Amino acid sequence: MNLQRLLDAYFPVSVHMGVVVEAADECRVVLRAPLAPNLNHAGTAFGGSLFSVAVLAGWGWLTCRLAQERIDAEAVIQESHMRFLAPARGELRAVLEAPPAAAVEKFRKMLQRSGRGRIGLRVDVHDGGTCAARFDGQFAALLRHP
Amino acid sequence: MNLQRLLDAYFPVSVHMGVVVEAADECRVVLRAPLAPNLNHAGTAFGGSLFSVAVLAGWGWLTCRLAQERIDAEAVIQESHMRFLAPARGELRAVLEAPPAAAVEKFRKMLQRSGRGRIGLRVDVHDGGTCAARFDGQFAALLRHP
Repeated sequence: MNLQRLLDAYFPVSVHMGVVVEAADECRVVLRAPLAPNLNHAGTAFGGSLFSVAVLAGWGWLTCRLAQERIDAEAVIQESHMRFLAPARGELRAVLEAPPAAAVEKFRKMLQRSGRGRIGLRVDVHDGGTCAARFDGQFAALLRHP
Repeated sequence: MNLQRLLDAYFPVSVHMGVVVEAADECRVVLRAPLAPNLNHAGTAFGGSLFSVAVLAGWGWLTCRLAQERIDAEAVIQESHMRFLAPARGELRAVLEAPPAAAVEKFRKMLQRSGRGRIGLRVDVHDGGTCAARFDGQFAALLRHP
């Protein structure tokens, strides 16, 4: 599964934001977005863009992971908490590190047993060296043909 | 202060999303956005767009309120919690009802005393009759010349 192609084909907001997949594998997803299309009134990054790049990183990791394991399920965001720590003044870089193996295993078992799994994913959005925002999202996956 | 002009001038993501100000006064802010530019992989509204329209409603209400009271301060989002309740399959409508007068008064006093005020704002994002997402945001305002 090619995450860049998926974002470009199905998420017009992602295209407008200029989101580029820097890395997408089992261990991590890194998405980048330039500042210009994501500006706010103060000349820094719009909070909605920080959220969007973070939720795309989480959704992208989960979707790729499901595809890799040949599980026909749809990933959706259920709940999120986001802290805005500092204004982002340059290119955005959303970094998701895979959750611990035990959490992934628990998620996989829930999904197989009940047709529905839940997993928490954290994404930090950096601006150069600074962490501008921290996203904690609860995602769900639903088997398409349980 | 004209909120539509502000969004169009300073938030390119809002322009791309097609955000239209339906109402913006002391009591409420209502923003609308069509589905097409805000789609996701499943043909429903992208979670990032639901968040963006909600945070713009909160920011817009606070910014207009400050301008109305001739307080030279900048409004920013600090923290947010969002629950995604149902897929949104049509035009989005973000509705902010002003918080209780006592909360607004407390915020105003904090801002005057310390140059910095905080206030919690709730925004529901509807899709027709359904509430698709509920946003609770903690906003801060900082006096520009304390």
